[in-house]
Amino acid sequence: MKPMQILVIGGVAAGASFAARARRLSESAQITVIERGPDVSFANCGLPYHIGGEIPVRDVLAVQTPASLKALLNVDVRVRTEAMQIDRENRRVLVRDVQSGQSEWLNYDKLMLAPGAAPRVPDLPGIGDARVFTLRNLADMDKIAAAANAGMRAVVVGAGFIGLEMAEQLHHKGLTVEVVQIGAQVLPQIDAKLALLLENELVHHDIKLHLNDQVVRFDGQGDALHCQLASGKTLEADFVVLSIGVEPETRLAKDAGLTLGARGHIVVNDFMQTSDATIYAAGDAVETRDRVFGQPVNVPLGGPANRQGRVAADHIFMPEKARPYPGSMATAIVRVFGVAAGSTGWTEDRLQKAGRDYRAVTVNDYQHATYFPGAMPLTLKILWDTQTGELLGGQAAGHDGVDKRLDVLATAIAGKLTVEDLAHLELAYAPPFGSAKDIVNLAGFAACNQRDGLVETVTELPVDASVQIIDVRGKPVADANPVPGTVNIPMPTLRANLERLDKSRPVVTLCAMGKNSYFASRVLKQHGFDVKSLDGGVKMLLNTRNPAKM
Amino acid sequence: MKPMQILVIGGVAAGASFAARARRLSESAQITVIERGPDVSFANCGLPYHIGGEIPVRDVLAVQTPASLKALLNVDVRVRTEAMQIDRENRRVLVRDVQSGQSEWLNYDKLMLAPGAAPRVPDLPGIGDARVFTLRNLADMDKIAAAANAGMRAVVVGAGFIGLEMAEQLHHKGLTVEVVQIGAQVLPQIDAKLALLLENELVHHDIKLHLNDQVVRFDGQGDALHCQLASGKTLEADFVVLSIGVEPETRLAKDAGLTLGARGHIVVNDFMQTSDATIYAAGDAVETRDRVFGQPVNVPLGGPANRQGRVAADHIFMPEKARPYPGSMATAIVRVFGVAAGSTGWTEDRLQKAGRDYRAVTVNDYQHATYFPGAMPLTLKILWDTQTGELLGGQAAGHDGVDKRLDVLATAIAGKLTVEDLAHLELAYAPPFGSAKDIVNLAGFAACNQRDGLVETVTELPVDASVQIIDVRGKPVADANPVPGTVNIPMPTLRANLERLDKSRPVVTLCAMGKNSYFASRVLKQHGFDVKSLDGGVKMLLNTRNPAKM
Repeated sequence: MKPMQILVIGGVAAGASFAARARRLSESAQITVIERGPDVSFANCGLPYHIGGEIPVRDVLAVQTPASLKALLNVDVRVRTEAMQIDRENRRVLVRDVQSGQSEWLNYDKLMLAPGAAPRVPDLPGIGDARVFTLRNLADMDKIAAAANAGMRAVVVGAGFIGLEMAEQLHHKGLTVEVVQIGAQVLPQIDAKLALLLENELVHHDIKLHLNDQVVRFDGQGDALHCQLASGKTLEADFVVLSIGVEPETRLAKDAGLTLGARGHIVVNDFMQTSDATIYAAGDAVETRDRVFGQPVNVPLGGPANRQGRVAADHIFMPEKARPYPGSMATAIVRVFGVAAGSTGWTEDRLQKAGRDYRAVTVNDYQHATYFPGAMPLTLKILWDTQTGELLGGQAAGHDGVDKRLDVLATAIAGKLTVEDLAHLELAYAPPFGSAKDIVNLAGFAACNQRDGLVETVTELPVDASVQIIDVRGKPVADANPVPGTVNIPMPTLRANLERLDKSRPVVTLCAMGKNSYFASRVLKQHGFDVKSLDGGVKMLLNTRNPAKM
Repeated sequence: MKPMQILVIGGVAAGASFAARARRLSESAQITVIERGPDVSFANCGLPYHIGGEIPVRDVLAVQTPASLKALLNVDVRVRTEAMQIDRENRRVLVRDVQSGQSEWLNYDKLMLAPGAAPRVPDLPGIGDARVFTLRNLADMDKIAAAANAGMRAVVVGAGFIGLEMAEQLHHKGLTVEVVQIGAQVLPQIDAKLALLLENELVHHDIKLHLNDQVVRFDGQGDALHCQLASGKTLEADFVVLSIGVEPETRLAKDAGLTLGARGHIVVNDFMQTSDATIYAAGDAVETRDRVFGQPVNVPLGGPANRQGRVAADHIFMPEKARPYPGSMATAIVRVFGVAAGSTGWTEDRLQKAGRDYRAVTVNDYQHATYFPGAMPLTLKILWDTQTGELLGGQAAGHDGVDKRLDVLATAIAGKLTVEDLAHLELAYAPPFGSAKDIVNLAGFAACNQRDGLVETVTELPVDASVQIIDVRGKPVADANPVPGTVNIPMPTLRANLERLDKSRPVVTLCAMGKNSYFASRVLKQHGFDVKSLDGGVKMLLNTRNPAKM
């Protein structure tokens, strides 16, 4: 029998995973990987960290070579080779050697498209300046690393995951860094209040944030590149890193007539087959299903890409045993100096815009037992379906243990767990690692309290003067960090001071972290007050946003 | 209406959580907590760490006092008060002031029994020596802390969670520590191979382990306490800490005629009601349901205790909204110096003894991207139902990220996730926090490979000389740490060396961590060999056990 010809376009995350899994499943298949760039299977998520010097040795990011993949997997890898055209009828792809310009047709029985996504580059005056960089591959990394020296000024445009990592790493290398972000917050992948911690951490490291702003023009002025912002400000930089998102590389798929989604991604079924059943696609360029609600979604992240490649290979070589890709939930995390924040599933912003029926709660606690050395604050927000109680999304921000809680919530979403289930998760507890009631349990408790009508919450302080706002923090804390318009009645004295409150007027209780104000609201509610508790406490008020931000 | 009288016996984890939740649900109830000891609501899991000095300030372990609980919760706490007898007919409890000896009857409408469990003390000659300690409360802690000084010799009897924590902390304080353990491994709550890391870490810190041994007699010999072991060895110590398990404190319940379980725990329903519906029980003394298989189980840990107290209070004050306690899965973790290990759900040892139909796989990887600084080895073992693929248990051991993986697996068990679901968990990935394919995904992949018949595994090397054992590690590694009776054919050279192998004889492949030997087994299987891969690699062979252990 003629061996099956497998052709793979793109040799990084999805393409490399696909090729490796294909070889495990078939020793006889002829597997060829075409990669436009000079490198395959490199560690693209590590690029910022080599630029900043945290990963000092470049080689660790480029462990595999065509030769090593040949030895390990018996896969033929052709780098610096671009796929030009798919001839679906004859099942062949025209490829071109980037250096020699020579082209040839390669046959396939099954084709895998893993072209990835390219950094978005806006059409702005001056965008072509050689000092405006984007970061996708090792060559990009080398360029930025060569350009970036301690003492220089860098402007990072875009404060998503890569923008924040670049800002951190350039600062780590000794540069002065400014960040320009089109929206009102950094990391729009999480809700604004959770992003506060990241913003404060950036400012704490003297990184200037220009929120609600954008570059409208780059002007090369001698040694300096001037970034003209919409606000009228001009930032001077030695170079700029653009990180405002990615665009799927789908020209090849489009030209071949494969079905694309509303936003231009390659449409695939649950086994990663495109509209042509002999052509699979995986990774940043494809549109799969949202794991929570099922609608089409593109999640350009490494984890989904790797697992999609695996699903496709299973479907080709053992279709009777292959399991469908279950969809993506956009679990992601970023570290910014000493803090981290991330999200899984849907954010409140997204649920709101989609008109979903959800509820939310934010809780503050610590990553482990407070009495154990090193306890640091941690914030957790969860969102759930009002009717079923099922978790729809979760976010965490803090110094330590953020990744753990995101992973628990991601697993809970995969299991369709409810807030009641979160309350009763039995997580690993010893003082160095957690609490007898972990913050995930606390979030579950708080959600159940909402569901059971034990508490009503507000997320901002009322401006209506008829509302009595009761600050139940201890007096020294309240005095040191007063909230205007409140009356301080520390929680332990509340029951003895009920007569100071007017039962005919609504009450909002607040405290530092949201727990004591819930306790206070229970006391007041049972004494007949119309009372709401400030969700997440003073800590979560957006007006605590650091005024040093610009 | 007469306020409801709530009486609580025991004021630590379950009792205190119950009282607090009861107060949130009812401002009018009269809540009284009876505690035999001098302290309430103290941090019992922190006790070893104050003895060792890692938690330097004692006060952080005893934050609540009767006065603070009165102020915060309007709960009457009576410390140094012992419950002597329950008069169920008249709904009252006879309590005795431990100091004055005076007693009185306290009425209840609902009674909560949260008596906890006491350290097991074996009936051995010399057991009454004042230098033999157990650790349950702050008073015990103070005694040990007062007795333990740097330079002394301590013997810890029992290598469960508390024994290991005590060994670590006494070493931390500068003592010479020996550990006596009745079984063949430390921490019988996990499988032997996972416990290796803990054992090696103890030995690395010059803590002598006496496995398969036990104390048969204590002899006070002047300044030294001689611990006579069954093996004939005598250990000299300045003091001994006994940590060989706990016994539920159920005399009160038993005398009152409440139903006890086969092993003497208080039987409760899913709402924590005992056989007397007006009497609830929670915490270390009760028998609830196993969350995996549903049979009666006692899990004496802080997390379950706290949540059980909450369930009981909900059932009393809002029975229509109360949710049943879902059972316990015995999630637990221990840190021993620089490493940690733990378990959730069922271990292989337990599944085997129960005759369950399960399968298991052990994978080795790192806690985060290998190219990111600080990557440390991590081992994960999962067990699943052969028929359904549902996760039955999981264990982890390593330097960092152990708690995270246990929490993910515990959440997966709660969600009845299968190994396929584990393969497709979308966990938070950035290089400082994880890998694009997290070790949990890898375990899912490996389990699916078993299920799909892609690989067969062995957990020990065959002794049958007809089996060809192929070591596919690189030559330098294999030369440095050879495995007797193997032939070294590095993975990248395997395809070129197939003719060196005899297809008529079975093959076992091995590598360092279990991954390359799986790859090799796929190559060989497809070339017609009868091949099995060594699960978890050389790292998991029990004969790698450190010979310095005694």
